[in-house]
Amino acid sequence: MITANPHYKKLQGSYLFSRISKILEEERKAQPNLDIIKLGIGDVTKPLSPAVIKAFHQGVDDMATEQGFRGYGPEQGYEFLREIISTNEFPELDIKADEIIVSDGSKCDVANIQELFTQNTSVALPDPVYPVYVDSNVMAGRSQDFKDGRYEGIHYLEGTQANNFVPPPPAEHFDLIYLCFPNNPTGQVASHADLERYVTYALEHNALILFDAAYCAFIQDSTLPKSIYEIPHAKKCAVEFRSFSKTAGFTGTRCAFTVIPKECRIFDAEKKPTALHDLWIRRHSTKFNGVSYPVQRAAAAIYSKAGAEETENRIQYYMHNAKIITQTMETLGLTFYGGKNAPYVWVDTKKSSWDMFTEILKKTGIVLTPGSGFGKNGEGFIRISAFNSTENVETAMQRLQSMF
Amino acid sequence: MITANPHYKKLQGSYLFSRISKILEEERKAQPNLDIIKLGIGDVTKPLSPAVIKAFHQGVDDMATEQGFRGYGPEQGYEFLREIISTNEFPELDIKADEIIVSDGSKCDVANIQELFTQNTSVALPDPVYPVYVDSNVMAGRSQDFKDGRYEGIHYLEGTQANNFVPPPPAEHFDLIYLCFPNNPTGQVASHADLERYVTYALEHNALILFDAAYCAFIQDSTLPKSIYEIPHAKKCAVEFRSFSKTAGFTGTRCAFTVIPKECRIFDAEKKPTALHDLWIRRHSTKFNGVSYPVQRAAAAIYSKAGAEETENRIQYYMHNAKIITQTMETLGLTFYGGKNAPYVWVDTKKSSWDMFTEILKKTGIVLTPGSGFGKNGEGFIRISAFNSTENVETAMQRLQSMF
Repeated sequence: MITANPHYKKLQGSYLFSRISKILEEERKAQPNLDIIKLGIGDVTKPLSPAVIKAFHQGVDDMATEQGFRGYGPEQGYEFLREIISTNEFPELDIKADEIIVSDGSKCDVANIQELFTQNTSVALPDPVYPVYVDSNVMAGRSQDFKDGRYEGIHYLEGTQANNFVPPPPAEHFDLIYLCFPNNPTGQVASHADLERYVTYALEHNALILFDAAYCAFIQDSTLPKSIYEIPHAKKCAVEFRSFSKTAGFTGTRCAFTVIPKECRIFDAEKKPTALHDLWIRRHSTKFNGVSYPVQRAAAAIYSKAGAEETENRIQYYMHNAKIITQTMETLGLTFYGGKNAPYVWVDTKKSSWDMFTEILKKTGIVLTPGSGFGKNGEGFIRISAFNSTENVETAMQRLQSMF
Repeated sequence: MITANPHYKKLQGSYLFSRISKILEEERKAQPNLDIIKLGIGDVTKPLSPAVIKAFHQGVDDMATEQGFRGYGPEQGYEFLREIISTNEFPELDIKADEIIVSDGSKCDVANIQELFTQNTSVALPDPVYPVYVDSNVMAGRSQDFKDGRYEGIHYLEGTQANNFVPPPPAEHFDLIYLCFPNNPTGQVASHADLERYVTYALEHNALILFDAAYCAFIQDSTLPKSIYEIPHAKKCAVEFRSFSKTAGFTGTRCAFTVIPKECRIFDAEKKPTALHDLWIRRHSTKFNGVSYPVQRAAAAIYSKAGAEETENRIQYYMHNAKIITQTMETLGLTFYGGKNAPYVWVDTKKSSWDMFTEILKKTGIVLTPGSGFGKNGEGFIRISAFNSTENVETAMQRLQSMF
C-alpha cells in the first residue's frame, strides 16, 4: 500500500500569506472603495534593470541559433556566472568559483540542504523565523507535533526585544543552526561579534551553520558583516545562501547561489570529517538540472558596470522607502527594529498581531504582515516591507499617521 | 556533531557520462585528428523555434516595465500555461489545469516526489533504467548496498529481449512502480494492453505508478498510448511526468510539468485514502518558488499555431535521423529496439558495452552510450541518440557501416 510520509501531517495548514489573502478578499467585499496598498509580502516591485534586460535578451537570442544554442548546462551553473560571482561578491574572502553553486532560488536550497544530514540531526533555528527552515525539517521527520505555537523536538533560538532579535548561541548542543542576517522578518543584522560567537559554538560542537544572507545587499553600515566568511574559520563550519531575488529583482526570474567552501566539513558515521561540498554537488547533479541559460546570462549582467550601478540604485530606492517608514514609526513613538540595513521594519504594536493587521487594513487599506506568522516571538509585532513605490509608501505612512 | 546522510555513501561514484567524458578526453589526446561525432548524451541540438523565441523575448520585455513586471508567481505555474497545457495535451482526457503542476524539470520532479512517501515504501523500477529513479531512492534510504550491479532492497523489473524491454508487472507486492515510455534508454513503447496490466496491478495492490512520459511527443504510431491516462482508472493510481526538454528543445531553458489528478490517492497511516495532489502542492510551495516567468511565456508559445508546427517539425527532424539510424542497423543485420517512436535506438552489439563503446570511438570517432550504464540488463547494448544534425547522423552511419 502506497503510504504518505507521515510527517507532512504535522505541518500547520493555514499558511500565513493565504490567511492574509483571505482576510483581504473579505475586506474588499465589505469596503469596495477601500484603496489597498500592499506592504506585506516581501516581493520586489521595480522592473529588472536595463543591463539585465539586455543580457537576458542576448541569452534568448543565443538560444535561437545553431551556434549559440545551449542544451543541458552544468548543474552547478555556468563557469561565466560562477567566476563573476566569485570576483565581485567575495573579492577579499577567497571564495573560489567552484565553491559557488548556482540554483533557481535560495528557498529551494535552504529547504533541500537538510537532506544531506542524518535523520536524527538536532536542529536549532530562530523565532521569529522564515517558515521554510522549520517546515523542511518537519517534513523530514526531525520534529514531533505542533503544540502551543511550536514544533516539539526543534530548538528555537529566542529572538526578543531584550537581545534586539539577535539571539545568542544556545547553551546546549545542536548539530545544525539556521541563521538569517539581515533578518527576515525583523530586519536586524548581526555584528561581527555576534557571528563570532556562533562560529566558535559551531567549531566547539562540531555543528554546522546555515547562514541565509539573501538580504545582504541592503546592508548600509559598512562595519556590519555581509558574509559569514568575514568571520575567521567560518569556512570550516558554515554554508552561505545568497540570492538575486531581492538584490536585483529576480523573484520572478529565479536565480540564486549557495556557497559551500571546500574546507566546510561534515562527519561520517565513523566521525571522520568529510567535505560537505561533495555531498551537495551529488544532490544537485542528481535532483536538479541547472538554471535556465538566458537567466544565468541575465544574472551575470548585474556585475557589469551599468548593471552594478542600476542594481545599487534599486537597493537605494527601497532603502529610501525604508527610511520613510522608520521616520514615521519614530514620529508615532512606536518601538521598531530593522529598516536601517534591511528592507523590513519590525514594529511593536502592543496588540495582538492579527488584531492590529485587521484594524490597519480596515481603517487604512494598508496590508502589512502579522508578526505572529513568523513564530511565537513575533506576537505583538507587524512587519512593514519597503518593497513598493515611494509614492505608495508615502501615502501609506500618511494614512498610518492619521490612524494612530 | 553534524553527521552526513549515511545513504549517500551507497551511491556509485563513477557516473556514466563522466566516465564517457574521461575516455573521450583520453582518445582526443591519443588521436588528435579524430573527427568526433556525439550521438551519446540525450541532449537536443536544434535551437528554440522562432515562435518560442518571440514569446521568450516578450516575456523578458514584460520584466522591463512597471506594468509588466512579475515578481513571485504561483509556485505551481501561471494559469495561462497550465490552461494551455490542459487544453492541448489532454483534449480528450479531462485533465484539468489545476491537476498540472509546472516545474523546472522532470528530473527534479521525478527525484523529489519520493519524499511524499513513507520511508519503508517498497520500490520496483525497470532495468535498464534512467539512473535518477534509483539514485533518489537510494539517497532516501530505501535500499541497502550496491552488489553485483544492483542495489539490494530495490526490486528491478527485468527488461529483456524476451519481453521486448517492456517488462510485465511483478508477481510480488510493491508500493511504488516507476515506468518510462517511450523508454530511455531502449526507445521501446508500451501498448495499451501493457499499461492496462500495470494499472490493474496498481489498483489491486493499492500501489502508485510514476509514469515518465518525457518522450511522448516522439510517438508516431497513433495506436500507442501517449499518456497513461488513456488507460481507464489510471487517474486513481498514476502520476505522469512531462517535459518540454526533448519535445521543444528546452534542455537548457528548463520547463516541465507533472500531472497529479485530484482523484489520485495515497494512504495515510490509518490506511485511509487521501489526495496525493495536496501533498505535492505542499512540497512544491514549501521547497520551490516557481519557474522563471519569461520561460513560462516561452513554453506556452509551443501551443500557438506557429509554435506547434515548428515543434512538430523539430520532432520530425529527429525522427528522420532515427530512421537513418534504424535503416543502418537493418543493413548491418544488427538486432535493435526503439527508434520508431522514440529518438533512441538500442542495439544488441553481442559484446561488452564498454568494449564496443571504446572500439567504435577509436575506429570511427563516434560517441555512443554503453547500455550497461543504464543497468545490468543493458550489458551488451549501446544506445544511439537521434539528437544531432542529419548531416552528422549520416556521416556517423556511413562510418559505422565501413567499420562493421
